[in-house]
Amino acid sequence: MDFNVFAKACPSRPTLEHVTGRWGSLTMGALVDGPLRFNELRRRVDGVSEKMLSQTLHALERDGLVHREAQQTNPPRVDYSLTPLGRETAERLLSLIHLLETRMPEVLAAQQAYDAR
Amino acid sequence: MDFNVFAKACPSRPTLEHVTGRWGSLTMGALVDGPLRFNELRRRVDGVSEKMLSQTLHALERDGLVHREAQQTNPPRVDYSLTPLGRETAERLLSLIHLLETRMPEVLAAQQAYDAR
Repeated sequence: MDFNVFAKACPSRPTLEHVTGRWGSLTMGALVDGPLRFNELRRRVDGVSEKMLSQTLHALERDGLVHREAQQTNPPRVDYSLTPLGRETAERLLSLIHLLETRMPEVLAAQQAYDAR
Repeated sequence: MDFNVFAKACPSRPTLEHVTGRWGSLTMGALVDGPLRFNELRRRVDGVSEKMLSQTLHALERDGLVHREAQQTNPPRVDYSLTPLGRETAERLLSLIHLLETRMPEVLAAQQAYDAR
């Protein structure tokens, strides 16, 4: 079977949305440097609510992109990390993120020109 | 000035969201093969409404990623194409899309394992 995100019913489309969604891309990007606990992730992904981060992590875990590991400590702690597929995905996302960050002066100039029309 | 999508107020964050949003990534991906008219785009991005496609294109045009060109024909026609920066962005998006499409069997297996827990 061939998968095609351009087709409305293809199961690859929700996965693309989990990865590129408002919080998915930042969550994946934040985990590239190594495992993080929930609250560490929440600080790194500035502006995400507890509920949204939790939903984002569940979707990415179900897709096999993020691994959740509960440590048997007291108090218990939960680490989140990228799976091998998650890492490959995050590297492509970061390539996109770095391009946009680098080229923001060009984007801001385009926005000013657009607004001045 | 350094731009950082992880910071809530950074202007790079809305641009990342335009590019990776529900319809932004598919719209950018659809334009990689060449310019398209609005209705051609709408067919290619299966499931998008006229309103959402129009909003998506405006945001991408304002960011300098998509170029809109109205032809002086009768009836008038409007072509949408990627700018050079839009093309670089779209190529990185497509690299991500192709990875996910190729690895969907792995994703589906992870989803089944997750749901069976």
